[in-house]
Amino acid sequence: MAKVGIIMGSTSDLPIMQEAIDILEGFDIEIEVDIVSAHRTPEKLFDYGKNAHTRGISVIIAGAGGAAHLPGMVASLSPLPVIGVPVKSRNSIDGWDSVLSILQMPGGVPVATVALDGAKNAGILAAQIIGSSDKCVLDKILVYKEGLKQKVIEGAKKVAK
Amino acid sequence: MAKVGIIMGSTSDLPIMQEAIDILEGFDIEIEVDIVSAHRTPEKLFDYGKNAHTRGISVIIAGAGGAAHLPGMVASLSPLPVIGVPVKSRNSIDGWDSVLSILQMPGGVPVATVALDGAKNAGILAAQIIGSSDKCVLDKILVYKEGLKQKVIEGAKKVAK
Amino acid sequence: MAKVGIIMGSTSDLPIMQEAIDILEGFDIEIEVDIVSAHRTPEKLFDYGKNAHTRGISVIIAGAGGAAHLPGMVASLSPLPVIGVPVKSRNSIDGWDSVLSILQMPGGVPVATVALDGAKNAGILAAQIIGSSDKCVLDKILVYKEGLKQKVIEGAKKVAK
Amino acid sequence: MAKVGIIMGSTSDLPIMQEAIDILEGFDIEIEVDIVSAHRTPEKLFDYGKNAHTRGISVIIAGAGGAAHLPGMVASLSPLPVIGVPVKSRNSIDGWDSVLSILQMPGGVPVATVALDGAKNAGILAAQIIGSSDKCVLDKILVYKEGLKQKVIEGAKKVAK
Amino acid sequence: MAKVGIIMGSTSDLPIMQEAIDILEGFDIEIEVDIVSAHRTPEKLFDYGKNAHTRGISVIIAGAGGAAHLPGMVASLSPLPVIGVPVKSRNSIDGWDSVLSILQMPGGVPVATVALDGAKNAGILAAQIIGSSDKCVLDKILVYKEGLKQKVIEGAKKVAK
Amino acid sequence: MAKVGIIMGSTSDLPIMQEAIDILEGFDIEIEVDIVSAHRTPEKLFDYGKNAHTRGISVIIAGAGGAAHLPGMVASLSPLPVIGVPVKSRNSIDGWDSVLSILQMPGGVPVATVALDGAKNAGILAAQIIGSSDKCVLDKILVYKEGLKQKVIEGAKKVAK
Amino acid sequence: MAKVGIIMGSTSDLPIMQEAIDILEGFDIEIEVDIVSAHRTPEKLFDYGKNAHTRGISVIIAGAGGAAHLPGMVASLSPLPVIGVPVKSRNSIDGWDSVLSILQMPGGVPVATVALDGAKNAGILAAQIIGSSDKCVLDKILVYKEGLKQKVIEGAKKVAK
Amino acid sequence: MAKVGIIMGSTSDLPIMQEAIDILEGFDIEIEVDIVSAHRTPEKLFDYGKNAHTRGISVIIAGAGGAAHLPGMVASLSPLPVIGVPVKSRNSIDGWDSVLSILQMPGGVPVATVALDGAKNAGILAAQIIGSSDKCVLDKILVYKEGLKQKVIEGAKKVAK
Repeated sequence: MAKVGIIMGSTSDLPIMQEAIDILEGFDIEIEVDIVSAHRTPEKLFDYGKNAHTRGISVIIAGAGGAAHLPGMVASLSPLPVIGVPVKSRNSIDGWDSVLSILQMPGGVPVATVALDGAKNAGILAAQIIGSSDKCVLDKILVYKEGLKQKVIEGAKKVAK
Repeated sequence: MAKVGIIMGSTSDLPIMQEAIDILEGFDIEIEVDIVSAHRTPEKLFDYGKNAHTRGISVIIAGAGGAAHLPGMVASLSPLPVIGVPVKSRNSIDGWDSVLSILQMPGGVPVATVALDGAKNAGILAAQIIGSSDKCVLDKILVYKEGLKQKVIEGAKKVAK
Repeated sequence: MAKVGIIMGSTSDLPIMQEAIDILEGFDIEIEVDIVSAHRTPEKLFDYGKNAHTRGISVIIAGAGGAAHLPGMVASLSPLPVIGVPVKSRNSIDGWDSVLSILQMPGGVPVATVALDGAKNAGILAAQIIGSSDKCVLDKILVYKEGLKQKVIEGAKKVAK
Repeated sequence: MAKVGIIMGSTSDLPIMQEAIDILEGFDIEIEVDIVSAHRTPEKLFDYGKNAHTRGISVIIAGAGGAAHLPGMVASLSPLPVIGVPVKSRNSIDGWDSVLSILQMPGGVPVATVALDGAKNAGILAAQIIGSSDKCVLDKILVYKEGLKQKVIEGAKKVAK
Repeated sequence: MAKVGIIMGSTSDLPIMQEAIDILEGFDIEIEVDIVSAHRTPEKLFDYGKNAHTRGISVIIAGAGGAAHLPGMVASLSPLPVIGVPVKSRNSIDGWDSVLSILQMPGGVPVATVALDGAKNAGILAAQIIGSSDKCVLDKILVYKEGLKQKVIEGAKKVAK
Repeated sequence: MAKVGIIMGSTSDLPIMQEAIDILEGFDIEIEVDIVSAHRTPEKLFDYGKNAHTRGISVIIAGAGGAAHLPGMVASLSPLPVIGVPVKSRNSIDGWDSVLSILQMPGGVPVATVALDGAKNAGILAAQIIGSSDKCVLDKILVYKEGLKQKVIEGAKKVAK
Repeated sequence: MAKVGIIMGSTSDLPIMQEAIDILEGFDIEIEVDIVSAHRTPEKLFDYGKNAHTRGISVIIAGAGGAAHLPGMVASLSPLPVIGVPVKSRNSIDGWDSVLSILQMPGGVPVATVALDGAKNAGILAAQIIGSSDKCVLDKILVYKEGLKQKVIEGAKKVAK
Repeated sequence: MAKVGIIMGSTSDLPIMQEAIDILEGFDIEIEVDIVSAHRTPEKLFDYGKNAHTRGISVIIAGAGGAAHLPGMVASLSPLPVIGVPVKSRNSIDGWDSVLSILQMPGGVPVATVALDGAKNAGILAAQIIGSSDKCVLDKILVYKEGLKQKVIEGAKKVAK
């Protein structure tokens, strides 16, 4: 049973969102992946948001570009924590549109926003949310962070003068 | 029977949106006014968007601030032309958030965006849309534009050196 | 007799504006296409704006880049609804110049602004405006929106895990 | 034992951050509140980030203004989910500095960013994270969302024409 | 006979534009002042732009706010140098709209843009343009610049430690 | 004897500034071209600014990128009208740095700013300044503007439907 | 003999720049304070920049607003480290103009830029530069940093729950 | 013994930071180069910041991209002057994120910020800081500045008309 639901507004967002998929598979956390367009499939959005928590989903990751309404609308419909990934789409104004459309939610309906095209961090954040009540996942995150450190230390050896 | 539906995300948007109401009442165009929050009343949003055109509404004006999803979501649900008014709300980042959240809609689902806090122009635009198939309203717009001109010419008399 | 007039400031805007042409031809709505430069052919602009509604045009779509004055000047001269398409031209400052030059019209003279390079949505919006008083076009828009939905659902099938 | 740790860079951030405190107290979730300055008390930051999860904290909320390094540095040190609140401080460049300093974290170290001065949403998001594994808190969020809806519906009654 | 024509889009621009009037009167350069709205009096704009150089005007100063089309449209119609003053009007997005609408003119039709609300400098620039072919005005500018210097030197005496 | 002095901060600005050279040569206006770096050759800047008007120069065009101080410093030193061309240099932040460094001059010392990389318009503006007191050049500008119009009309013929 | 030269473009910058004066007096570092306007007293700027290092000055702090050329021009003329303080002046575009005019210096001529209105930090940075070769000043900075820490710890006591 | 410590957040910053290395080697100033990631190696950051001044380092240069916390955190930990280089990394929002994360430090903890990708200037500034108490290095900077001038003068010869 999937713990993290990953949705995106269009198949064109998949290359970016794949990084969230890869991270969560690396942590052995079960996921489901779907295309849900706030603007083209509003009924599907409605069903998804209303029912995700009843299907056992714990965290939702939603990626979208431009006037990105998917993360905020899912957050409107679901009681679960929603992580928003601003995607820098074609015709975007340097990504500012998706960043502000996702970040600047009104009081009452938060979206946990990550960096522009930051799907990798969305995956890690979802794992941390699960880890906040699951010691086994928390330990994996500690190991992951140790790995980040080792990679820097190895890089430093090559550069140091 | 109302021809223009005016909706806004919060009662706090009413002082701005009142200018659209005043303009349309000035043109003797019947309106309805409602509060529909994309983030707090998604079911009402859904009903509104799905049914407005079946009730005789011809144009929808939707105002919202911050991560303003109301205009775009109504446009997603309705086949009618939707005019979006970016409102500069409290905690807004200088209005950029509502402007970009409304303007930068993806291909397939347009929102006719007017200036920041530009509810007056939203009202005029709604009248122009009705006027595009109603000679009587079109004539009122020609008169209105003549009035704008006269006001400038009177102002010019006072200033001219 | 053309119902929608599509104008642009320069032949270099045509590749972008073609998307509006294609959409409206797809809806079987008669159009006319012309180059009208606010800055280089002001007399032609004047004639166009003053007379479009007398020739049977219902909606004007105007695309321009940089300090984009064409949409606003046509809106100044015509009682018709004017849709503005900000075009990201060469030497543009990331498109902000055309977006703000078109969007931020003063009270009294609205331009229905769409996204940067959003000519496709300008075409759909023009159809929606005609559809607001023409049941046949309204039905075509409902069919078009259904098509958008089906395309997402097919995409979702390929992606879903 | 506190479940949510709320920290901020300066006592001057307290008026904004109080909204997170109020929300979490409203949900009966135990919190601790502290001042931790990334730039003036780096040792305390270090201790806080390294040990929060060992003391039973599940989620950290960190608010800061300007070149806001507190949320990202705590996220660097802790395996827990960290929610960042960009505070619009005195001398801020319209809030852009704190928004970008918190949002644009590099791959590997996410911060769940909320809107500018969005401490209320930080509190709700922390509750949602706890609720993702605690049915009792999840139910409170469903009740809270129902309350948001009722308030809009009452507001709509007063406005509707 | 006036040498400099000062025009503005609205009487509300007069408090800002007064600084240009004062500077040019200080240089004993004859001016005329008028209200010409690109959006509300396009015919007057047309007449003004087409005829200013035939009436003996050498330089035009045009101030406007928001989607400021007046300077660029006058520049389109007149062969004279046009100085544009971006005015930070009510509902402006921090002045960026008028700055970019005036500055980013397409190749072929320049506007000499000064700083936001920089009407004083527009007046000085107009004097410099006249001074470029009039030794008497050039000398006045040299005296004016010497005055600026003396004022700084006096201020420095009070501050110096 | 040169009437227009064209200077730039670096040889790397020449490809952009060449458009000003070409335009002025097309108008048969004598020019001189030089490299003057505000930051690397401050003495040369000083000499240039102090003496240009004594050598018969009527207008100065100064192009620079990044923190572009050349136009403003020449304007500080010379009583002549100075036209500033913001150049989008390598490492520029999208051109905003040179635009704002040139445009936002303090009261007392104007720079006539043109669009980003707008050297062509700088050349035309210089010609217009000379034309404001030289009927022969004014006539050439009227011819030039007529040429712009013809080119649009020819383009329109190809596009029109 | 003064070790730090503090200059600013206008007496109106003094309220901001006073914070640099106060900090350096607190560190018992001798200073001199002067008004030097790049645009109104270019000769004084020239003298100041050419000679500061010969008078025993070790560090220059320069504050200016708008198109702020003072820090960069002094850096052009002097071999000393120059600290630039962007001042948010009247008519500034939210401070972006002075920030970018000071920060984005071309390769070869650095300005050590501090935050908008960050004169206090300019003073500390000047002390740090002197402290980098003067153990006595370095120790004062260590004491100062300890003081910052104690103030946070005392604030934390009042807030902690 | 190294006088200047050059650190960066990732090996991917090295191509940019190399310019600082080259400049300082050109001035015969001893340097050390290391990778220190604020977010992935916080302990190493801590050690580096706390001890650099005890090892004989006089100036620290720190380069980082995105939410760039390295320069500010080192400045928090060290009494030495810290020069920050905003690096335009992949996924950066046009460089604004690193610029504002480094520049907008709170009162008490300055970072001497240089231009986006301005590592060359960071190297020169470090030399100037050393030169402020070392006549031999100061003389090298005077020679370096003379070299900049000569290069411009040679370029001018080729361009001049």
